[in-house]
Amino acid sequence: MTDTAEYDVVVLGAGPVGENLADRARAAGLSTAVVESELIGGECSYWACMPSKALLRPVIARADARRVPGLSGSVQGPLDVPAVLAHRDYYVSNWKDDGQVDWLKSIGVDIYRGQGRIEGPKRITVEGPAGERHTLTARHAVAVCTGSRAVVPDLPGLAGANPWTSRDATSAKHVPGRLVIVGGGVVGVEMATAWQAFGSRVTVLVRGKGLLPRMEPFAGELVAEALTDAGATVRTGASVASVERADGSGPVTVVLQGGERIEADEVLFATGRAPRTDDIGLDTVGLKPGSWLTVDETCRVEGSDWLYGVGDVNHRALMTHEGKYQARIAGAAIAARAHGDPLDTARWGAHSATADHAAVPQVVFTDPEAAAVGLSLAEAEAAGHRVRAVDYDLASVAGSGLYADGYRGRARMIVDLDREILLGATFVGPGVGELLHSATVAVAGEVPVDRLWHAVPAYPTISEVWLRLLETYRG
Amino acid sequence: MTDTAEYDVVVLGAGPVGENLADRARAAGLSTAVVESELIGGECSYWACMPSKALLRPVIARADARRVPGLSGSVQGPLDVPAVLAHRDYYVSNWKDDGQVDWLKSIGVDIYRGQGRIEGPKRITVEGPAGERHTLTARHAVAVCTGSRAVVPDLPGLAGANPWTSRDATSAKHVPGRLVIVGGGVVGVEMATAWQAFGSRVTVLVRGKGLLPRMEPFAGELVAEALTDAGATVRTGASVASVERADGSGPVTVVLQGGERIEADEVLFATGRAPRTDDIGLDTVGLKPGSWLTVDETCRVEGSDWLYGVGDVNHRALMTHEGKYQARIAGAAIAARAHGDPLDTARWGAHSATADHAAVPQVVFTDPEAAAVGLSLAEAEAAGHRVRAVDYDLASVAGSGLYADGYRGRARMIVDLDREILLGATFVGPGVGELLHSATVAVAGEVPVDRLWHAVPAYPTISEVWLRLLETYRG
Repeated sequence: MTDTAEYDVVVLGAGPVGENLADRARAAGLSTAVVESELIGGECSYWACMPSKALLRPVIARADARRVPGLSGSVQGPLDVPAVLAHRDYYVSNWKDDGQVDWLKSIGVDIYRGQGRIEGPKRITVEGPAGERHTLTARHAVAVCTGSRAVVPDLPGLAGANPWTSRDATSAKHVPGRLVIVGGGVVGVEMATAWQAFGSRVTVLVRGKGLLPRMEPFAGELVAEALTDAGATVRTGASVASVERADGSGPVTVVLQGGERIEADEVLFATGRAPRTDDIGLDTVGLKPGSWLTVDETCRVEGSDWLYGVGDVNHRALMTHEGKYQARIAGAAIAARAHGDPLDTARWGAHSATADHAAVPQVVFTDPEAAAVGLSLAEAEAAGHRVRAVDYDLASVAGSGLYADGYRGRARMIVDLDREILLGATFVGPGVGELLHSATVAVAGEVPVDRLWHAVPAYPTISEVWLRLLETYRG
Repeated sequence: MTDTAEYDVVVLGAGPVGENLADRARAAGLSTAVVESELIGGECSYWACMPSKALLRPVIARADARRVPGLSGSVQGPLDVPAVLAHRDYYVSNWKDDGQVDWLKSIGVDIYRGQGRIEGPKRITVEGPAGERHTLTARHAVAVCTGSRAVVPDLPGLAGANPWTSRDATSAKHVPGRLVIVGGGVVGVEMATAWQAFGSRVTVLVRGKGLLPRMEPFAGELVAEALTDAGATVRTGASVASVERADGSGPVTVVLQGGERIEADEVLFATGRAPRTDDIGLDTVGLKPGSWLTVDETCRVEGSDWLYGVGDVNHRALMTHEGKYQARIAGAAIAARAHGDPLDTARWGAHSATADHAAVPQVVFTDPEAAAVGLSLAEAEAAGHRVRAVDYDLASVAGSGLYADGYRGRARMIVDLDREILLGATFVGPGVGELLHSATVAVAGEVPVDRLWHAVPAYPTISEVWLRLLETYRG
């Protein structure tokens, strides 16, 4: 039996991005449905941001406490890992989504459980868990917010070896004695930090030259140094050739190119993401299943007047906060188009996700924290900007030394020499996570360097590095 | 015997402000001398910012650790107070200034030890500790950077009671069993936080309605709540009538208006500051000894073409970082005038300390931290701005809850409804100290609210309160 319903907006995927888009649509008076095949709240709430940060916060707080005189002696022992895991479980609501369901209902969004598929323009079918079917029509817009999934490489033996992906690493209920992590991006370094602190002997294998390859090189260097100090092993230039695990359980052996064998109790592959667009009926509207969606600045799919791709699926910036930002922008654009209002798609306009190109922030919750926004030096140069990178040793800032004995960290800002504004900034060190937003405001606000000179950092905070960077720039 | 010397610039007072002004002058190629009667490095280095933050950091780190699952159990015990005090001693270089002397010498600044006094236009005499005398002539400018000192009220019995002032509270080598603190400003609440954590039973007495009266009211309320939870007593509407202490040692009794008597082992008066201008020869140039200096936007004394008042002495904003800012601006103005270069004294110009009026940041290192920049609601309304205060409960931000279990905090931004920019912002809660600079950049940068919408906070940080504030404002 199939029932039918009509909405102004139908959202495929009810992670943070889909939820925010639905919220924006409802706020604009548009009737809205979301379709979700898993938990309302998505990857972020249950298998990514929330559990990973719930796992990492005690690790970072302990590291901070250990660097403080008068306190360090009392925090040399191990973390109470069961307590940390229980707190993680609490933060993911034990993988139940009642709270988020209630919230969506409270704002008047209808929820359809099941796999949603496009069946031609503005038409969606939903196949529910018990075989029930719904046909939904969207008067104005269908927004694909299905996100991405972890992908593992096609290596001999890997499929049968039950490797961890990010979902397993954030939801594990036991501490593996030995954990091999393949990949040195954000997932790799955050999970290395957490599980090493919980008692695993962690080995991180990266194919390239270092960790966190999308950030300034010193970010990966400082994080690698700290992971090594914490007892982990970080190996660069290490490519995995195959994986061996009898029956898919028990010890697992990772075989490197060259033949070296590393035995572990679990292996985590943190090697990239793929869009969850393979089974949503893209072929019915002339798009390729499994592809990233190419969208304009309003997040509308190129060539369509009703289909939007918001969040990870558009491959602009695979981060929860950036997907939510796109949801705000796209939601406003959908509403404006539905109401026949004019759009402002100019740079930094109300209907342009400009920050996706110019001011994407990221905080990596390792010890030290690594935080960056906008362009790195390499990215700025590749984009043809005439820039200068200004560096400063965070250990030389009074507020840093007060924050932590033996502080190690570094800051860099990228100055556009033609416009005298910042194109990017990177801070690596303990306690810099909340400092990043100052740079995000400066970069997105295109605040001139001469004006930043008047933005006085409070003394003695780590933020005083701003003064030092500006002094260094002015010479 | 008197020797004489001539410089481009003579600086009275070598605290951070004088040091920075000398640095700027030297950077502009001007010959420069500083005159200092105490330690090179000033109040901040030995009796204010540095020791207070060295005392407070372990207190805050312990409070943070106590709010983290898996770690809280190990940090329930007392701090190792001797270790904290020893670290404080290290941070003030055991009240020795060799390091700062070496730095000033390294940049080519001459140092004169002793009391400096103006003796007519551009002329300074220095009376050294052994009676030696120097007469210095300043070709271009004399900068008074002598700062301020704690003042205690003229109460019966107080003079003979050896009360603590901020210097004693930051340099004490023993923990008083009972400590009464008179005054609920920054010094009062910071020292209450520190000494209560070190084992004193602290009573804070404030005449007015609450703590931190210059900030938004909720700042003082949250800090009072936390001090009370920590075991301290906070009493508002409590005026001290007299103080009794036999022989100036042993227990001290604070007598309130109304007759109530409170006994303690020490009493700290944190009741305000006075300019250190009483013995610097102001009368020789027609100014009143002991007065605050009235200066223009370049920090030049009104009516003079050679005398500057920089830092606390001008009463614009009594904070180290703001004094250093003024030193940068005044130093640039002195250099421009000396070289005959044009000045830019327009609002936010290179030679205008505009931030003193519009964007003074302050972080109070209590638990919770209280951080504010720009105008409070009351200040904005008093100044005639058409504003809206936008509030948000920091406990409702995902990053806050992850930072600390049971997070309590609040944020407010003040929007100028005519210009759609921020005039001020306040954050109170654990971990907000480094978050403040984002608001300082927004306020000093006059970044429009519509652009702040594109300044995406990284998820899940406390900084996401920015999104919530902006959403609340947009309704």
